[in-house]
Amino acid sequence: MNRFYRRLSDRWNASNSLLCVGLDPDAGKMPRSITNDSESLFKFNREIITAVAPFACAFKPQIAYYAAVGAENQLQKTIDFIKREYPDIPVILDAKRGDIGSTADMYAREAFERYQVDAVTVNPYMGGDTIAPFTRYRDRGVVVLCRTSNPGSGDLQEWKSDSTELYRQVAALAATQWNANTNVALVVGATYPEILGEVREIVGDMPILVPGIGAQGGDLEAVVANGLDSNNCGLLINMSRSIIYASSAADFAEAAASQAQQAVQQINQYRQLHSRGTSE
Amino acid sequence: MNRFYRRLSDRWNASNSLLCVGLDPDAGKMPRSITNDSESLFKFNREIITAVAPFACAFKPQIAYYAAVGAENQLQKTIDFIKREYPDIPVILDAKRGDIGSTADMYAREAFERYQVDAVTVNPYMGGDTIAPFTRYRDRGVVVLCRTSNPGSGDLQEWKSDSTELYRQVAALAATQWNANTNVALVVGATYPEILGEVREIVGDMPILVPGIGAQGGDLEAVVANGLDSNNCGLLINMSRSIIYASSAADFAEAAASQAQQAVQQINQYRQLHSRGTSE
Repeated sequence: MNRFYRRLSDRWNASNSLLCVGLDPDAGKMPRSITNDSESLFKFNREIITAVAPFACAFKPQIAYYAAVGAENQLQKTIDFIKREYPDIPVILDAKRGDIGSTADMYAREAFERYQVDAVTVNPYMGGDTIAPFTRYRDRGVVVLCRTSNPGSGDLQEWKSDSTELYRQVAALAATQWNANTNVALVVGATYPEILGEVREIVGDMPILVPGIGAQGGDLEAVVANGLDSNNCGLLINMSRSIIYASSAADFAEAAASQAQQAVQQINQYRQLHSRGTSE
Repeated sequence: MNRFYRRLSDRWNASNSLLCVGLDPDAGKMPRSITNDSESLFKFNREIITAVAPFACAFKPQIAYYAAVGAENQLQKTIDFIKREYPDIPVILDAKRGDIGSTADMYAREAFERYQVDAVTVNPYMGGDTIAPFTRYRDRGVVVLCRTSNPGSGDLQEWKSDSTELYRQVAALAATQWNANTNVALVVGATYPEILGEVREIVGDMPILVPGIGAQGGDLEAVVANGLDSNNCGLLINMSRSIIYASSAADFAEAAASQAQQAVQQINQYRQLHSRGTSE
Protein backbone atom coordinates (compact mmCIF):
# COMPACT_ATOMS: atom_id res chain seq x y z
CA MET A 1 0.00 0.00 0.00
CA ASN A 2 1.18 3.52 -0.82
CA ARG A 3 2.67 5.32 2.16
CA PHE A 4 0.14 8.18 2.04
CA TYR A 5 -2.81 5.78 1.85
CA ARG A 6 -1.34 3.75 4.71
CA ARG A 7 -0.62 6.74 6.95
CA LEU A 8 -4.14 8.00 6.36
CA SER A 9 -5.68 4.62 7.05
CA ASP A 10 -3.63 4.17 10.22
CA ARG A 11 -4.66 7.61 11.41
CA TRP A 12 -8.34 7.07 10.64
CA ASN A 13 -8.22 3.98 12.82
CA ALA A 14 -6.09 5.40 15.63
CA SER A 15 -8.05 8.64 15.96
CA ASN A 16 -11.49 7.24 15.09
CA SER A 17 -11.92 10.52 13.22
CA LEU A 18 -12.61 11.53 9.63
CA LEU A 19 -12.10 15.23 10.42
CA CYS A 20 -9.42 17.13 8.50
CA VAL A 21 -8.60 20.50 10.03
CA GLY A 22 -7.78 23.30 7.59
CA LEU A 23 -5.09 25.74 8.70
CA ASP A 24 -6.05 28.99 6.92
CA PRO A 25 -4.75 31.62 9.33
CA ASP A 26 -5.91 35.15 8.58
CA ALA A 27 -4.50 37.84 10.86
CA GLY A 28 -7.73 39.81 10.47
CA LYS A 29 -9.68 37.08 12.25
CA MET A 30 -7.33 36.19 15.09
CA PRO A 31 -7.38 37.31 18.73
CA ARG A 32 -5.41 40.51 19.18
CA SER A 33 -3.03 38.84 21.65
CA ILE A 34 -1.69 36.76 18.75
CA THR A 35 -1.64 39.29 15.94
CA ASN A 36 0.82 41.49 17.80
CA ASP A 37 3.45 38.81 17.28
CA SER A 38 5.76 38.83 14.26
CA GLU A 39 5.12 35.08 13.79
CA SER A 40 1.42 35.31 14.47
CA LEU A 41 0.35 32.80 11.83
CA PHE A 42 2.64 30.09 13.16
CA LYS A 43 1.81 30.81 16.79
CA PHE A 44 -1.90 30.76 16.09
CA ASN A 45 -1.51 27.46 14.24
CA ARG A 46 0.59 25.97 17.03
CA GLU A 47 -2.15 26.63 19.57
CA ILE A 48 -4.86 25.29 17.27
CA ILE A 49 -2.88 22.18 16.31
CA THR A 50 -2.10 21.30 19.91
CA ALA A 51 -5.75 21.72 20.89
CA VAL A 52 -7.37 19.83 18.02
CA ALA A 53 -4.78 17.11 17.29
CA PRO A 54 -6.67 14.40 19.22
CA PHE A 55 -9.67 14.93 16.93
CA ALA A 56 -7.90 15.29 13.56
CA CYS A 57 -7.22 12.62 10.94
CA ALA A 58 -5.19 15.16 8.93
CA PHE A 59 -4.12 18.81 8.80
CA LYS A 60 -4.51 20.86 5.65
CA PRO A 61 -2.64 24.17 5.51
CA GLN A 62 -3.87 26.38 2.64
CA ILE A 63 -0.75 27.92 1.11
CA ALA A 64 -2.51 31.09 -0.16
CA TYR A 65 -2.88 32.41 3.39
CA TYR A 66 0.90 32.32 3.81
CA ALA A 67 1.85 33.40 0.29
CA ALA A 68 -0.41 36.48 0.43
CA VAL A 69 1.65 37.93 3.27
CA GLY A 70 5.11 36.56 2.45
CA ALA A 71 4.99 34.08 5.33
CA GLU A 72 6.39 30.94 3.69
CA ASN A 73 8.68 30.53 6.68
CA GLN A 74 5.66 30.31 9.00
CA LEU A 75 4.09 27.67 6.77
CA GLN A 76 7.34 25.71 6.98
CA LYS A 77 7.39 26.06 10.77
CA THR A 78 3.78 24.94 10.99
CA ILE A 79 4.45 21.81 8.94
CA ASP A 80 7.66 21.08 10.85
CA PHE A 81 5.78 21.45 14.13
CA ILE A 82 3.12 18.92 13.11
CA LYS A 83 5.72 16.45 11.86
CA ARG A 84 7.72 16.73 15.07
CA GLU A 85 4.89 16.76 17.62
CA TYR A 86 2.27 14.67 15.81
CA PRO A 87 4.22 12.47 13.38
CA ASP A 88 1.21 10.17 12.87
CA ILE A 89 -1.02 12.91 11.44
CA PRO A 90 -0.70 13.35 7.66
CA VAL A 91 -0.26 16.87 6.30
CA ILE A 92 -1.96 17.84 3.03
CA LEU A 93 -0.74 21.04 1.42
CA ASP A 94 -3.70 22.74 -0.22
CA ALA A 95 -2.12 24.47 -3.21
CA LYS A 96 -4.21 23.36 -6.21
CA ARG A 97 -1.18 23.40 -8.47
CA GLY A 98 -1.35 22.56 -12.14
CA ASP A 99 1.15 23.26 -14.92
CA ILE A 100 3.12 21.66 -17.76
CA GLY A 101 5.78 19.02 -17.20
CA SER A 102 8.89 21.01 -16.37
CA THR A 103 7.02 23.56 -14.26
CA ALA A 104 4.95 20.85 -12.55
CA ASP A 105 8.28 19.23 -11.58
CA MET A 106 9.08 22.46 -9.74
CA TYR A 107 5.69 22.56 -7.99
CA ALA A 108 6.09 18.92 -6.94
CA ARG A 109 9.50 19.85 -5.56
CA GLU A 110 7.92 22.75 -3.66
CA ALA A 111 5.35 20.48 -1.98
CA PHE A 112 7.30 17.28 -1.47
CA GLU A 113 10.90 18.43 -1.01
CA ARG A 114 10.70 21.98 0.30
CA TYR A 115 7.70 21.53 2.59
CA GLN A 116 7.94 17.72 2.89
CA VAL A 117 4.19 17.21 3.10
CA ASP A 118 2.40 13.88 2.72
CA ALA A 119 0.10 15.07 -0.06
CA VAL A 120 -0.75 18.10 -2.20
CA THR A 121 -3.93 19.19 -3.98
CA VAL A 122 -3.72 19.60 -7.78
CA ASN A 123 -5.95 21.01 -10.53
CA PRO A 124 -6.64 18.65 -13.47
CA TYR A 125 -7.66 21.23 -16.10
CA MET A 126 -4.38 20.93 -18.00
CA GLY A 127 -4.63 17.12 -18.27
CA GLY A 128 -2.95 13.91 -17.22
CA ASP A 129 0.62 14.80 -18.18
CA THR A 130 0.48 17.70 -15.71
CA ILE A 131 -0.48 15.34 -12.86
CA ALA A 132 2.23 12.75 -13.52
CA PRO A 133 5.09 14.86 -12.08
CA PHE A 134 3.28 14.71 -8.72
CA THR A 135 2.22 11.04 -8.75
CA ARG A 136 5.81 10.14 -9.65
CA TYR A 137 6.56 10.65 -5.94
CA ARG A 138 5.36 7.16 -5.07
CA ASP A 139 5.40 7.62 -1.31
CA ARG A 140 3.26 10.78 -1.38
CA GLY A 141 -0.37 11.50 -2.16
CA VAL A 142 -1.91 13.60 -4.93
CA VAL A 143 -5.38 14.98 -4.28
CA VAL A 144 -7.05 15.91 -7.58
CA LEU A 145 -9.91 18.43 -7.78
CA CYS A 146 -12.98 16.61 -9.07
CA ARG A 147 -16.15 18.45 -8.05
CA THR A 148 -15.49 21.52 -5.90
CA SER A 149 -17.82 23.00 -3.29
CA ASN A 150 -18.23 26.57 -4.56
CA PRO A 151 -21.32 27.99 -6.30
CA GLY A 152 -19.66 28.35 -9.72
CA SER A 153 -18.17 24.87 -9.70
CA GLY A 154 -20.62 23.69 -12.36
CA ASP A 155 -19.39 26.23 -14.94
CA LEU A 156 -16.82 23.74 -16.23
CA GLN A 157 -17.24 20.67 -14.04
CA GLU A 158 -20.76 19.94 -15.30
CA TRP A 159 -19.83 20.27 -18.96
CA LYS A 160 -21.41 17.14 -20.33
CA SER A 161 -20.34 14.86 -23.13
CA ASP A 162 -22.48 11.83 -24.09
CA SER A 163 -24.35 12.17 -20.79
CA THR A 164 -21.11 12.15 -18.78
CA GLU A 165 -20.27 15.32 -16.89
CA LEU A 166 -16.65 16.43 -16.81
CA TYR A 167 -16.30 15.74 -13.07
CA ARG A 168 -17.27 12.10 -13.70
CA GLN A 169 -14.61 11.89 -16.39
CA VAL A 170 -12.06 13.33 -13.94
CA ALA A 171 -13.07 10.72 -11.38
CA ALA A 172 -12.75 7.95 -13.97
CA LEU A 173 -9.33 9.15 -15.14
CA ALA A 174 -8.16 9.52 -11.55
CA ALA A 175 -9.25 5.97 -10.71
CA THR A 176 -7.55 4.47 -13.76
CA GLN A 177 -4.97 6.27 -15.91
CA TRP A 178 -3.69 8.68 -13.29
CA ASN A 179 -3.45 6.17 -10.44
CA ALA A 180 -0.68 3.87 -11.67
CA ASN A 181 1.20 4.45 -8.40
CA THR A 182 -1.92 4.09 -6.22
CA ASN A 183 -1.41 7.46 -4.60
CA VAL A 184 -4.28 9.56 -5.97
CA ALA A 185 -7.20 10.98 -3.97
CA LEU A 186 -10.01 13.35 -5.00
CA VAL A 187 -11.71 16.54 -3.87
CA VAL A 188 -15.53 16.47 -3.90
CA GLY A 189 -17.42 19.28 -2.20
CA ALA A 190 -19.88 18.64 0.63
CA THR A 191 -22.34 20.94 -1.08
CA TYR A 192 -23.06 18.21 -3.67
CA PRO A 193 -23.57 15.06 -1.57
CA GLU A 194 -25.32 13.06 -4.33
CA ILE A 195 -22.32 13.70 -6.55
CA LEU A 196 -20.10 12.45 -3.74
CA GLY A 197 -22.09 9.20 -3.89
CA GLU A 198 -21.63 8.97 -7.68
CA VAL A 199 -17.91 9.58 -7.38
CA ARG A 200 -17.59 7.02 -4.59
CA GLU A 201 -19.09 4.44 -6.93
CA ILE A 202 -16.60 5.32 -9.66
CA VAL A 203 -13.46 5.31 -7.50
CA GLY A 204 -14.02 2.49 -5.01
CA ASP A 205 -12.13 3.02 -1.75
CA MET A 206 -10.02 5.95 -2.94
CA PRO A 207 -9.70 8.66 -0.26
CA ILE A 208 -11.91 11.71 -0.85
CA LEU A 209 -11.24 15.13 0.64
CA VAL A 210 -14.54 16.92 1.28
CA PRO A 211 -14.52 20.70 1.75
CA GLY A 212 -17.68 22.76 2.14
CA ILE A 213 -18.96 21.72 5.56
CA GLY A 214 -19.30 24.58 8.04
CA ALA A 215 -19.02 28.06 6.59
CA GLN A 216 -20.15 26.85 3.13
CA GLY A 217 -23.17 24.97 4.47
CA GLY A 218 -22.74 21.40 3.23
CA ASP A 219 -24.92 18.69 4.79
CA LEU A 220 -22.77 16.55 7.09
CA GLU A 221 -25.13 13.59 7.34
CA ALA A 222 -25.55 13.39 3.57
CA VAL A 223 -21.77 13.54 3.14
CA VAL A 224 -21.22 10.62 5.49
CA ALA A 225 -24.12 8.63 4.04
CA ASN A 226 -22.85 9.04 0.48
CA GLY A 227 -19.12 9.15 0.96
CA LEU A 228 -18.01 6.33 3.28
CA ASP A 229 -15.79 3.65 1.78
CA SER A 230 -16.15 -0.07 2.42
CA ASN A 231 -14.27 0.26 5.73
CA ASN A 232 -16.51 3.07 7.00
CA CYS A 233 -13.60 5.44 6.41
CA GLY A 234 -12.39 6.94 3.11
CA LEU A 235 -13.28 10.57 3.87
CA LEU A 236 -11.29 13.60 4.92
CA ILE A 237 -14.12 15.90 5.95
CA ASN A 238 -12.47 19.28 6.03
CA MET A 239 -13.42 22.12 8.35
CA SER A 240 -11.38 25.27 8.54
CA ARG A 241 -13.05 28.51 9.56
CA SER A 242 -15.77 26.93 11.71
CA ILE A 243 -13.07 25.38 13.90
CA ILE A 244 -10.12 27.74 13.90
CA TYR A 245 -12.29 30.84 14.36
CA ALA A 246 -14.78 29.25 16.77
CA SER A 247 -13.83 32.05 19.16
CA SER A 248 -11.97 35.29 18.53
CA ALA A 249 -11.14 35.71 22.21
CA ALA A 250 -8.29 34.33 24.27
CA ASP A 251 -10.05 30.94 24.50
CA PHE A 252 -9.81 30.34 20.74
CA ALA A 253 -7.82 27.11 21.09
CA GLU A 254 -10.23 25.56 23.62
CA ALA A 255 -13.15 26.67 21.49
CA ALA A 256 -11.54 25.05 18.44
CA ALA A 257 -11.01 21.79 20.34
CA SER A 258 -14.60 21.81 21.50
CA GLN A 259 -15.87 22.38 17.94
CA ALA A 260 -13.59 19.66 16.58
CA GLN A 261 -14.71 17.20 19.24
CA GLN A 262 -18.38 17.91 18.53
CA ALA A 263 -17.80 17.50 14.79
CA VAL A 264 -16.12 14.13 15.29
CA GLN A 265 -18.94 12.93 17.55
CA GLN A 266 -21.51 14.00 15.01
CA ILE A 267 -19.62 12.39 12.14
CA ASN A 268 -19.26 9.19 14.13
CA GLN A 269 -22.98 9.06 14.89
CA TYR A 270 -23.67 9.32 11.18
CA ARG A 271 -20.99 6.70 10.47
CA GLN A 272 -22.79 4.25 12.73
CA LEU A 273 -26.16 5.11 11.22
CA HIS A 274 -24.98 4.79 7.62
CA SER A 275 -22.35 2.10 8.12
CA ARG A 276 -21.78 0.19 4.89
CA GLY A 277 -23.06 -3.32 5.35
CA THR A 278 -25.37 -2.65 8.29
CA SER A 279 -27.96 0.06 7.60
CA GLU A 280 -30.48 0.21 4.76
CA MET B 1 -9.41 51.17 -21.36
CA ASN B 2 -8.20 48.94 -18.55
CA ARG B 3 -4.70 49.78 -17.35
CA PHE B 4 -3.28 46.34 -18.17
CA TYR B 5 -4.75 46.40 -21.68
CA ARG B 6 -3.42 49.92 -22.20
CA ARG B 7 0.07 49.16 -20.90
CA LEU B 8 0.23 46.13 -23.14
CA SER B 9 -1.03 48.03 -26.15
CA ASP B 10 1.44 50.87 -25.55
CA ARG B 11 4.28 48.40 -25.22
CA TRP B 12 3.30 46.47 -28.36
CA ASN B 13 3.48 49.72 -30.28
CA ALA B 14 6.64 51.11 -28.67
CA SER B 15 8.64 47.89 -28.99
CA ASN B 16 7.12 46.65 -32.24
CA SER B 17 7.30 43.24 -30.58
CA LEU B 18 4.81 40.53 -29.66
CA LEU B 19 7.48 38.53 -27.80
CA CYS B 20 6.90 37.74 -24.12
CA VAL B 21 10.00 36.45 -22.36
CA GLY B 22 9.46 33.81 -19.69
CA LEU B 23 11.72 34.00 -16.66
CA ASP B 24 11.96 30.37 -15.49
CA PRO B 25 15.42 30.28 -13.93
CA ASP B 26 16.68 26.80 -13.09
CA ALA B 27 20.06 26.67 -11.37
CA GLY B 28 20.76 23.35 -13.09
CA LYS B 29 20.77 25.05 -16.48
CA MET B 30 22.72 28.23 -15.73
CA PRO B 31 26.38 29.04 -16.34
CA ARG B 32 28.53 28.01 -13.39
CA SER B 33 29.71 31.59 -12.86
CA ILE B 34 26.17 32.49 -11.80
CA THR B 35 25.14 29.43 -9.79
CA ASN B 36 27.93 30.03 -7.27
CA ASP B 37 26.06 33.11 -6.11
CA SER B 38 23.52 32.98 -3.27
CA GLU B 39 21.14 35.10 -5.36
CA SER B 40 21.81 33.27 -8.57
CA LEU B 41 18.20 33.30 -9.84
CA PHE B 42 17.90 37.05 -9.50
CA LYS B 43 21.33 37.73 -10.95
CA PHE B 44 20.69 35.45 -13.90
CA ASN B 45 17.36 37.19 -14.50
CA ARG B 46 18.92 40.64 -14.23
CA GLU B 47 21.39 39.84 -17.00
CA ILE B 48 18.72 38.31 -19.18
CA ILE B 49 16.25 41.16 -18.64
CA THR B 50 18.83 43.82 -19.43
CA ALA B 51 19.86 42.01 -22.61
CA VAL B 52 16.40 41.20 -23.99
CA ALA B 53 14.34 44.20 -22.80
CA PRO B 54 14.49 45.99 -26.17
CA PHE B 55 12.82 42.96 -27.79
CA ALA B 56 10.19 42.14 -25.16
CA CYS B 57 6.55 43.24 -25.00
CA ALA B 58 6.23 41.61 -21.55
CA PHE B 59 8.09 39.52 -18.99
CA LYS B 60 6.53 36.43 -17.48
CA PRO B 61 8.21 35.01 -14.37
CA GLN B 62 6.98 31.49 -13.56
CA ILE B 63 6.54 31.36 -9.78
CA ALA B 64 7.15 27.59 -9.47
CA TYR B 65 10.85 28.05 -10.22
CA TYR B 66 11.18 30.33 -7.22
CA ALA B 67 8.80 28.48 -4.88
CA ALA B 68 10.56 25.14 -5.45
CA VAL B 69 13.74 26.47 -3.90
CA GLY B 70 12.35 28.94 -1.35
CA ALA B 71 13.45 31.94 -3.41
CA GLU B 72 10.39 34.20 -3.17
CA ASN B 73 12.72 37.08 -2.30
CA GLN B 74 14.52 36.65 -5.63
CA LEU B 75 11.21 36.69 -7.47
CA GLN B 76 10.37 39.92 -5.68
CA LYS B 77 13.76 41.41 -6.59
CA THR B 78 13.30 40.36 -10.21
CA ILE B 79 9.90 42.04 -10.44
CA ASP B 80 11.14 45.14 -8.63
CA PHE B 81 14.10 45.34 -11.01
CA ILE B 82 11.84 45.25 -14.09
CA LYS B 83 9.49 47.85 -12.63
CA ARG B 84 12.37 50.19 -11.78
CA GLU B 85 14.52 49.79 -14.90
CA TYR B 86 11.83 49.05 -17.51
CA PRO B 87 8.63 50.59 -16.15
CA ASP B 88 6.93 50.37 -19.56
CA ILE B 89 7.19 46.59 -19.79
CA PRO B 90 4.23 44.75 -18.22
CA VAL B 91 4.97 41.85 -15.87
CA ILE B 92 2.71 38.77 -15.90
CA LEU B 93 3.09 36.42 -12.96
CA ASP B 94 2.60 32.88 -14.21
CA ALA B 95 1.02 31.16 -11.21
CA LYS B 96 -2.12 29.46 -12.59
CA ARG B 97 -3.98 30.05 -9.35
CA GLY B 98 -7.53 28.90 -8.79
CA ASP B 99 -9.47 28.50 -5.55
CA ILE B 100 -12.72 29.42 -3.79
CA GLY B 101 -13.64 32.99 -2.87
CA SER B 102 -11.85 33.62 0.39
CA THR B 103 -8.72 31.75 -0.68
CA ALA B 104 -8.75 33.34 -4.13
CA ASP B 105 -8.78 36.71 -2.34
CA MET B 106 -5.48 35.67 -0.76
CA TYR B 107 -3.98 34.58 -4.08
CA ALA B 108 -5.04 37.85 -5.68
CA ARG B 109 -3.36 39.63 -2.80
CA GLU B 110 -0.20 37.58 -3.38
CA ALA B 111 -0.03 38.57 -7.07
CA PHE B 112 -1.30 42.13 -7.00
CA GLU B 113 -0.27 43.45 -3.60
CA ARG B 114 2.74 41.39 -2.55
CA TYR B 115 4.41 41.14 -5.97
CA GLN B 116 2.63 44.11 -7.55
CA VAL B 117 2.49 42.56 -11.01
CA ASP B 118 0.37 43.80 -13.90
CA ALA B 119 -1.35 40.47 -14.49
CA VAL B 120 -1.54 36.90 -13.23
CA THR B 121 -2.48 33.60 -14.89
CA VAL B 122 -5.46 31.71 -13.40
CA ASN B 123 -7.04 28.28 -13.85
CA PRO B 124 -10.79 28.28 -14.62
CA TYR B 125 -11.63 24.69 -13.55
CA MET B 126 -13.38 25.82 -10.37
CA GLY B 127 -15.65 28.27 -12.20
CA GLY B 128 -16.48 31.95 -12.53
CA ASP B 129 -16.78 32.79 -8.84
CA THR B 130 -13.15 31.76 -8.38
CA ILE B 131 -12.02 34.20 -11.08
CA ALA B 132 -13.94 37.22 -9.78
CA PRO B 133 -11.57 37.90 -6.84
CA PHE B 134 -8.84 38.53 -9.42
CA THR B 135 -10.83 40.57 -11.95
CA ARG B 136 -12.05 42.74 -9.07
CA TYR B 137 -8.64 44.45 -9.30
CA ARG B 138 -9.78 46.69 -12.14
CA ASP B 139 -6.36 48.07 -13.00
CA ARG B 140 -4.75 44.62 -13.35
CA GLY B 141 -5.04 41.81 -15.87
CA VAL B 142 -6.27 38.24 -15.41
CA VAL B 143 -5.00 35.69 -17.90
CA VAL B 144 -7.30 32.64 -17.93
CA LEU B 145 -6.14 29.22 -19.15
CA CYS B 146 -8.24 28.29 -22.18
CA ARG B 147 -6.41 25.74 -24.32
CA THR B 148 -2.94 24.86 -23.02
CA SER B 149 0.04 23.73 -25.09
CA ASN B 150 0.88 20.40 -23.45
CA PRO B 151 0.16 16.93 -24.92
CA GLY B 152 -2.53 16.04 -22.34
CA SER B 153 -4.38 19.34 -22.67
CA GLY B 154 -7.27 17.65 -24.48
CA ASP B 155 -8.07 15.34 -21.54
CA LEU B 156 -10.47 17.92 -20.12
CA GLN B 157 -10.28 20.88 -22.47
CA GLU B 158 -11.76 18.95 -25.43
CA TRP B 159 -14.67 17.58 -23.40
CA LYS B 160 -17.51 18.31 -25.74
CA SER B 161 -21.09 19.27 -25.05
CA ASP B 162 -23.55 19.85 -27.94
CA SER B 163 -20.60 20.07 -30.32
CA THR B 164 -18.89 22.74 -28.19
CA GLU B 165 -15.59 21.79 -26.60
CA LEU B 166 -14.90 22.97 -23.08
CA TYR B 167 -12.10 25.33 -24.19
CA ARG B 168 -14.60 27.13 -26.46
CA GLN B 169 -16.96 27.49 -23.53
CA VAL B 170 -14.10 28.93 -21.45
CA ALA B 171 -13.34 31.42 -24.24
CA ALA B 172 -17.02 32.40 -24.44
CA LEU B 173 -17.33 32.85 -20.67
CA ALA B 174 -14.09 34.83 -20.58
CA ALA B 175 -15.29 37.15 -23.32
CA THR B 176 -18.66 37.78 -21.68
CA GLN B 177 -19.50 36.91 -18.07
CA TRP B 178 -15.98 37.06 -16.67
CA ASN B 179 -14.92 40.24 -18.42
CA ALA B 180 -17.18 42.83 -16.78
CA ASN B 181 -14.09 44.90 -15.88
CA THR B 182 -12.46 44.46 -19.31
CA ASN B 183 -9.28 43.05 -17.87
CA VAL B 184 -9.33 39.40 -18.93
CA ALA B 185 -6.91 37.71 -21.32
CA LEU B 186 -6.53 34.05 -22.34
CA VAL B 187 -3.87 31.36 -22.67
CA VAL B 188 -3.98 29.36 -25.91
CA GLY B 189 -1.04 27.08 -26.76
CA ALA B 190 0.98 27.51 -29.95
CA THR B 191 0.75 23.76 -30.48
CA TYR B 192 -2.90 24.18 -31.57
CA PRO B 193 -2.84 27.10 -34.02
CA GLU B 194 -6.25 26.34 -35.59
CA ILE B 195 -7.76 26.50 -32.11
CA LEU B 196 -6.04 29.85 -31.63
CA GLY B 197 -7.93 31.03 -34.72
CA GLU B 198 -11.25 29.74 -33.33
CA VAL B 199 -10.63 31.43 -30.00
CA ARG B 200 -9.64 34.69 -31.70
CA GLU B 201 -13.03 34.67 -33.44
CA ILE B 202 -14.83 34.16 -30.14
CA VAL B 203 -12.99 36.81 -28.12
CA GLY B 204 -12.40 39.66 -30.60
CA ASP B 205 -9.36 41.75 -29.73
CA MET B 206 -8.78 40.25 -26.27
CA PRO B 207 -5.04 39.70 -25.58
CA ILE B 208 -3.93 36.08 -25.91
CA LEU B 209 -0.82 34.66 -24.23
CA VAL B 210 0.65 31.89 -26.40
CA PRO B 211 3.08 29.42 -24.84
CA GLY B 212 4.47 26.42 -26.68
CA ILE B 213 6.80 28.02 -29.26
CA GLY B 214 10.42 26.92 -29.00
CA ALA B 215 11.05 23.92 -26.75
CA GLN B 216 7.48 22.63 -27.23
CA GLY B 217 7.57 22.93 -31.02
CA GLY B 218 4.61 25.17 -31.89
CA ASP B 219 4.46 26.64 -35.40
CA LEU B 220 5.28 30.35 -35.23
CA GLU B 221 3.88 31.32 -38.62
CA ALA B 222 0.59 29.52 -37.95
CA VAL B 223 0.34 31.26 -34.57
CA VAL B 224 0.76 34.69 -36.11
CA ALA B 225 -1.56 33.91 -39.03
CA ASN B 226 -4.33 32.69 -36.72
CA GLY B 227 -3.83 34.84 -33.66
CA LEU B 228 -3.38 38.50 -34.68
CA ASP B 229 -6.06 40.92 -33.56
CA SER B 230 -7.54 43.67 -35.73
CA ASN B 231 -4.54 45.93 -34.97
CA ASN B 232 -1.98 43.30 -35.98
CA CYS B 233 -1.18 42.89 -32.29
CA GLY B 234 -3.16 40.99 -29.63
CA LEU B 235 -0.57 38.28 -28.96
CA LEU B 236 1.97 37.64 -26.23
CA ILE B 237 4.04 34.94 -27.89
CA ASN B 238 5.94 33.45 -25.00
CA MET B 239 9.41 31.96 -25.21
CA SER B 240 11.29 30.90 -22.13
CA ARG B 241 13.88 28.16 -22.40
CA SER B 242 14.83 28.78 -26.03
CA ILE B 243 15.86 32.33 -25.09
CA ILE B 244 17.15 32.23 -21.54
CA TYR B 245 19.20 29.06 -22.13
CA ALA B 246 20.34 29.94 -25.64
CA SER B 247 23.86 29.51 -24.28
CA SER B 248 25.08 27.94 -21.07
CA ALA B 249 28.43 29.72 -21.28
CA ALA B 250 29.45 33.16 -20.10
CA ASP B 251 27.83 34.75 -23.17
CA PHE B 252 24.32 33.60 -22.11
CA ALA B 253 22.90 37.14 -22.01
CA GLU B 254 24.19 38.09 -25.48
CA ALA B 255 22.94 34.76 -26.82
CA ALA B 256 19.53 35.42 -25.28
CA ALA B 257 19.38 38.88 -26.85
CA SER B 258 20.33 37.46 -30.21
CA GLN B 259 17.64 34.78 -30.00
CA ALA B 260 15.04 37.33 -28.90
CA GLN B 261 15.95 39.68 -31.71
CA GLN B 262 15.70 36.87 -34.28
CA ALA B 263 12.34 35.81 -32.88
CA VAL B 264 10.96 39.33 -33.13
CA GLN B 265 12.20 39.69 -36.71
CA GLN B 266 10.62 36.39 -37.65
CA ILE B 267 7.34 37.28 -35.93
CA ASN B 268 7.30 40.66 -37.66
CA GLN B 269 7.85 39.10 -41.08
CA TYR B 270 4.84 36.88 -40.44
CA ARG B 271 2.87 39.86 -39.15
CA GLN B 272 3.43 41.66 -42.43
CA LEU B 273 2.62 38.56 -44.44
CA HIS B 274 -0.59 37.83 -42.54
CA SER B 275 -1.60 41.36 -41.69
CA ARG B 276 -5.34 41.61 -41.12
CA GLY B 277 -6.85 43.59 -43.94
CA THR B 278 -4.00 43.22 -46.43
CA SER B 279 -3.13 39.60 -47.22
CA GLU B 280 -5.50 36.87 -48.38
